[in-house]
Amino acid sequence: MSEQDQGLNQRHADRMARKKAVVDAKIEAARVERGLLLVNTGNGKGKSTAAFGLLARALGHGQRAVVVQFVKGRSDTGEEAFYRNQPNVTWHVMGEGFTWETQNRERDIAAAKQGWTQAQQAMQDSSVGVVILDELNIVLKYHYLELADVLADIAARPAMQHVVVTGRAAPPELIEQADTVTEMNMVKHAFKNGVQAMPGVEW
Amino acid sequence: MSEQDQGLNQRHADRMARKKAVVDAKIEAARVERGLLLVNTGNGKGKSTAAFGLLARALGHGQRAVVVQFVKGRSDTGEEAFYRNQPNVTWHVMGEGFTWETQNRERDIAAAKQGWTQAQQAMQDSSVGVVILDELNIVLKYHYLELADVLADIAARPAMQHVVVTGRAAPPELIEQADTVTEMNMVKHAFKNGVQAMPGVEW
Repeated sequence: MSEQDQGLNQRHADRMARKKAVVDAKIEAARVERGLLLVNTGNGKGKSTAAFGLLARALGHGQRAVVVQFVKGRSDTGEEAFYRNQPNVTWHVMGEGFTWETQNRERDIAAAKQGWTQAQQAMQDSSVGVVILDELNIVLKYHYLELADVLADIAARPAMQHVVVTGRAAPPELIEQADTVTEMNMVKHAFKNGVQAMPGVEW
Repeated sequence: MSEQDQGLNQRHADRMARKKAVVDAKIEAARVERGLLLVNTGNGKGKSTAAFGLLARALGHGQRAVVVQFVKGRSDTGEEAFYRNQPNVTWHVMGEGFTWETQNRERDIAAAKQGWTQAQQAMQDSSVGVVILDELNIVLKYHYLELADVLADIAARPAMQHVVVTGRAAPPELIEQADTVTEMNMVKHAFKNGVQAMPGVEW
């Protein structure tokens, strides 16, 4: 090995040893264990898919999961076909399509309320490890559910249960209550370049 | 129903009908079908989980998938336990932990190269619908692989194959080549408030 390479490798090892000390101290300081409220919002791709990936993670640890899909009405998605075949998953599709598909405010409100009843049942069951409330933020944006009631029901869930809320335009009060919030921002999207929604990627 | 409610419902229906016309026109204009290159980057949670959610979606459409995990060395994650039990998934863990755990640049480079050999094999197999290159951006950031070679291999993959690349600090050249890019930005994270990495959420 050249002297230059040896120097590079040694400096790398030194830098990483310092980084490890910082990371290890942070991990040592984080000792609380509890159920988390996660929110995936923003205008980019990945809000729902991150929730469905977390679902795989939770199932891999033997947890039970309940998914409530608000707004989305189609039942031919890859995620639904896949997860309906898995043990420990209960999957509810409560919407009747996006609200511009139904164009019927009263029907949308009724569907949202039905969805929330399913969510409440899941959040009263301590054997459920993860509850995914997909596109709930859209329902809240249109005021189809009372925000204060939604926040109270989420706060009253079992102590070790995780809840994931997805959708654009998460309300500030939900972000305030949440433990972990990610804003998925669109840098670019294939759809804008004329690529249709591909199975396995968009649905 | 009150006159006020009737008016509200009618205005909603009118607004949504106009929105539907716009959305439908955009969907009509998007006719291209091809395999996509997706990049999940940024400092927030959701980059890898979104890739693992897309994996569920692809499996639900009957596609085959290959996952190559760069950098991450642990093999006790929920996602690995879950997906190793699924048909149509091949899962490779090529890292030996984050680079500050190994503190050994030469070993990290060797692991990255082994991982890339697995990625190349997957990207030469047109029976594979989706290839996930988890944390590849970290490997590129440290220059453990040649960026130009990586981009060329991705570009040469089968026409209908999707590739998902995750990790902070995606190089600009990769973003340029990608079809869909999301920046996952951290708004808040439970770890910063002393909550340890919870199974089912963080691993």
